[in-house]
Amino acid sequence: MAKEVTNRVDNYAQWYNDLVVKAGLAESSAVRGCMVIKPYGYAIWEKIQAALDKMFKDTGHVNAYFPLFIPKSFLSREAEHVEGFAKECAVVTHHRLMNSPDGKGLVVDPEAKLEEELVVRPTSETIIWNTYKGWIQSYRDLPVLVNQWANVVRWEMRTRLFLRTAEFLWQEGHTAHATREEAVAEAEKMVNVYADFAETFLALPVLVGKKTASERFAGAEDTYCIEALMQDGKALQAGTSHFLGQNFAKAFDVQYVSREGKQEYVWATSWGVSTRLMGALIMAHSDNCGLVLPPKLAPLQAVIVPIYKGDHELEAISAKANEMKRQLEALGVTVKYDDRDNVRSGFKFAEYELKGVPVRLAIGPRDMQNGTVEVARRDTLQKQLLPQENIAAHVTALLDEIQANIYAKAKAFRAENTAEVSSYDDFKAQIEKGGFILAHWDGTPETEAKIKDETKATIRCIPRDGKREPGCCMVTGKPSAQRVVFARAY
Amino acid sequence: MAKEVTNRVDNYAQWYNDLVVKAGLAESSAVRGCMVIKPYGYAIWEKIQAALDKMFKDTGHVNAYFPLFIPKSFLSREAEHVEGFAKECAVVTHHRLMNSPDGKGLVVDPEAKLEEELVVRPTSETIIWNTYKGWIQSYRDLPVLVNQWANVVRWEMRTRLFLRTAEFLWQEGHTAHATREEAVAEAEKMVNVYADFAETFLALPVLVGKKTASERFAGAEDTYCIEALMQDGKALQAGTSHFLGQNFAKAFDVQYVSREGKQEYVWATSWGVSTRLMGALIMAHSDNCGLVLPPKLAPLQAVIVPIYKGDHELEAISAKANEMKRQLEALGVTVKYDDRDNVRSGFKFAEYELKGVPVRLAIGPRDMQNGTVEVARRDTLQKQLLPQENIAAHVTALLDEIQANIYAKAKAFRAENTAEVSSYDDFKAQIEKGGFILAHWDGTPETEAKIKDETKATIRCIPRDGKREPGCCMVTGKPSAQRVVFARAY
Repeated sequence: MAKEVTNRVDNYAQWYNDLVVKAGLAESSAVRGCMVIKPYGYAIWEKIQAALDKMFKDTGHVNAYFPLFIPKSFLSREAEHVEGFAKECAVVTHHRLMNSPDGKGLVVDPEAKLEEELVVRPTSETIIWNTYKGWIQSYRDLPVLVNQWANVVRWEMRTRLFLRTAEFLWQEGHTAHATREEAVAEAEKMVNVYADFAETFLALPVLVGKKTASERFAGAEDTYCIEALMQDGKALQAGTSHFLGQNFAKAFDVQYVSREGKQEYVWATSWGVSTRLMGALIMAHSDNCGLVLPPKLAPLQAVIVPIYKGDHELEAISAKANEMKRQLEALGVTVKYDDRDNVRSGFKFAEYELKGVPVRLAIGPRDMQNGTVEVARRDTLQKQLLPQENIAAHVTALLDEIQANIYAKAKAFRAENTAEVSSYDDFKAQIEKGGFILAHWDGTPETEAKIKDETKATIRCIPRDGKREPGCCMVTGKPSAQRVVFARAY
Repeated sequence: MAKEVTNRVDNYAQWYNDLVVKAGLAESSAVRGCMVIKPYGYAIWEKIQAALDKMFKDTGHVNAYFPLFIPKSFLSREAEHVEGFAKECAVVTHHRLMNSPDGKGLVVDPEAKLEEELVVRPTSETIIWNTYKGWIQSYRDLPVLVNQWANVVRWEMRTRLFLRTAEFLWQEGHTAHATREEAVAEAEKMVNVYADFAETFLALPVLVGKKTASERFAGAEDTYCIEALMQDGKALQAGTSHFLGQNFAKAFDVQYVSREGKQEYVWATSWGVSTRLMGALIMAHSDNCGLVLPPKLAPLQAVIVPIYKGDHELEAISAKANEMKRQLEALGVTVKYDDRDNVRSGFKFAEYELKGVPVRLAIGPRDMQNGTVEVARRDTLQKQLLPQENIAAHVTALLDEIQANIYAKAKAFRAENTAEVSSYDDFKAQIEKGGFILAHWDGTPETEAKIKDETKATIRCIPRDGKREPGCCMVTGKPSAQRVVFARAY
C-alpha cells in the first residue's frame, strides 16, 4: 500500500493528498469543496476536540450553540466584517422545493422565497453579538466566556482537503468583557492555549505573534496567531485569537451598566481553530511511508502483528499477544491485535506505517521460543528486539519518547529553515529556499504589499518572543523596531 | 425567581417554555425557528452526547462527518424520501452577496447562482449512500457502522424550543450490511440502545415498538421507536431506528460482491436522536418550582449554600463548605459552593430549584455548632438534617436514590395513565383524559386515518413487549393480532 504514496520530493501537494486519501482520513465529496471526514480522520479530530475542550473548560469557558444561519442584514452591521465574508458565502433564498411542472425532477418553489436571505455562518460574531445584547445588562453579567463547536461555510474557489474547504469544522470562542485590558488579556490567554496545545499534542512548534493590520481578521483590532512551518518550507497559520475592541458591541448595541452606574460598550474577543489543524498535523511530521502521528492524538497507539505459519503457531502467538494487549490496555494504551488471515504480515506492516500507528509489535515462532518481541517505532522506522517481560511499560515509555522526538525533529527542522536576512536581495534569494525569514520591515502596508507582490511572501506575524533589536527596513531603509517573520504560506 | 414560572396546570405549554427560558436552557434566536442553546442547556446536551457516544462505540460504531449540503438531485433519487423532505428544506441558490447598486446594503449577486441548488441536510441518507458507493465493493467491506453528530435543518412552520425547531442537533447512524437479517438486527439493537439510554440516563420509561406504515420514516421499510409519556398526557417520540431495506442502495447503486462471488445490493439502517430529548427530559420530570434533572445528566449535581450574618460567620462556614466540596469532588460529584454576597440564600434556593440541581446543602451557624448540615433533595423537595460527617457518602447515595426515584415516579405516572379500551366510544372518552391507550386496530391505514381525523390520536407504536392476545378492531370489528398504542402526541 505504502508504495502508492507519491514521493514527497517529487510532488509535495500530491504526496499530501495521497496521505489524506490513502490513510483513510478524508475524501472529496459530491458537493463542490466539501469533504467527507472518514472514521480514521474523525477519530483524530475527536482527540483534538477532547484535548482543546478540556483546556477551554480549565480556563473558565463553557460551550453553547448558536444558529447555523445569519440574516443577511446582520453581516452588514460591521463594515470590515462584511467586506471579509460577503463575497464567499452560501446564501439560502428559499425554504421549499417542488416537483417541476415539466415532470423532470425538483425545482425551487418560487412561492417559498424568504423575505430576507440567510447566510450559512462563515463565522458567528454577528449572530452571537446580537444574542449577547439580551444576555448582558450589568457588569455582573460579565465576563461571558462562551465557546461553540460548529461547522462553518466559506465559499472558497480553490480547495484542498483539511487545509481549505468550503465547509469545515471548528470551534469559535466568543467572549465579552467589561474592560479593554481584560479582553486583551483573554485574547492573549487563548493564543497561548493554542500554542500550548500545538506543542503538547500536535508536537508542532509554533511561533506566537500578532498579525499586521492587513492580515487581521475582518473586524478585529488585533489578531494574535500561531504559525507553524511545514516540511515544504511553507508556513501554515494554525490558530488565531482576536481582540475585537468594541466593534461588535457597537454594531449590535451591547452596553452594560458599570459598577459606577455608567453605560459602557462591551469589549470582545473571538478565537478559533479548525480541521485545518489536521492538515498541519499531517504535513509537519509525515514521510514517504505515510502518516507519522504523535502518540497523544493517534487513534491507535500500538498494534500487534503475529508472524506465523499454520493454525498451531497462531494459537500460541495469539495467547501471548492477547496477554500483551491486556497489559498495554491496563496502562491506558490503545492497542489492536491484528490476526487477519487474508493479508500477509508485510501488507499489515505497510498499512500501519501508512496509517502512522506509533508502535508496532511483531511476534513470531522464534520470539515465542526466546521470550522476545520485535518493537518497531514509526517515527524513526527503527526496530528493536526486546524481552516480552515488561513490554507494556516499555511501550508506554516509548510512546512518550516518540511524542518528544517528533516535536524535537520538527523544531530542529524549523531552526534549520529559519534565516535572518538584512537586504532585500538576500530576502529574494532566501525565500526561494522556503522557511521562515526574519527581516526588518518599516511597518507600512505599502512595503508589505510590495514584498508580497514581488515575492509571494507575507508577514506571518510580528513575533512575541525573541530579540527586540532595532534595524532598518530591508526594502525602504526606514527604521524598524524588531524583525518580523516572513514566509510563503498556505 | 421560581414564582415567575407559569403553573403547569394552568398552561402546560407556557410552563414548559418558562422552564426552558428561565432556567437558562435555550431561547429563540433572531432567525425564524432556530434556537440558541445556552450554556446550561448545552451542558446537559454534552452529557447526553457523551453517554450515547460511549454506547455507540461499545456497540462497534465509529464517528465520521459528511457534508452539510445535499445536491438537489440526490433528494429525488429515493421516491418516498423526497416526498418527506423536499417541502420543508433550506435551499442554497447562490454563493455570493454584493453591495446593492442603490447603495442600500447587501443583495444576492445574480452572477453567483449555483448550477445546481444545494439543500441544507434535513437528514443524510442520500449524501452518505452516495459516499458508501465508493467505500463498499466486497463483503469484506461490510458491515459499515458509522455515526455522525451534526446539525440538520427542516423548515418547520410551527416551532417550539427543543421539541421542534428549524435547526436542531442530533446524531444519525448509517449502517450498511450484507444481509437483510443483519440489518434488521442492527435496527433492533439500536432502538434497544435508545431505550436503555432513556431509562438509565433520562430516567424516562419508554415503550419500544414499531411504527405503522403511515408513520414510518420516508424511505424506510420498518421504523422502530421509543415512545415516552409526558406529564400532560401527550406522547413524545424520543428516538427512531429504521430498517431501510435496499432502498438507498438501489437509489445510489451500492452493490457488493458476496462471499459466493455474486453482485448484491447492500442492506441499510439509519437511527437518530436529537436535541428533542432535552424537551422530553424537561417535560417528563419537572414541576412548578422548575426543572427536576436526573443526577446522571445534571451539569451541577449538588450545591452548597452558606446561611450567615457577617464575615466572621461566613469564614467559618466557608472553611467547612470547602472541605465538604473537596470530599464530594473526590467521590466524583459535580458540586459548587455558592458564596455570592449580592443575593440572599432564599434567592439562591429558588434559583437552584429552578435549575433542577438534585441536591442542595445548606450550612448555618447552628449547623456549625451541632456538626450538622441541611440536605434538600430537588425531586421531592424534602429536607433533612444530617451529620456533617460522612456527608459525601450520603450525597452520592442520595444522587442514586434520586435517579431511581425520578424514574419510578415517571413509570408510575405512565402506569396510571395507560388504559386498555375495547370500544371506540370508550376510546373517544378516554383520549380526552390523555395518556396511552391500548386498543385493537384492524391494521389498515384507512382505520388509522379515521381515528386520527376524529380524535387527533395516532398510533404511537405496535409495542414489542406485553400481551399478544388477539381481538377485534374497536372501529371496524375486524380481527386484530394485538393491541397497539394510541395517544395524542407532540
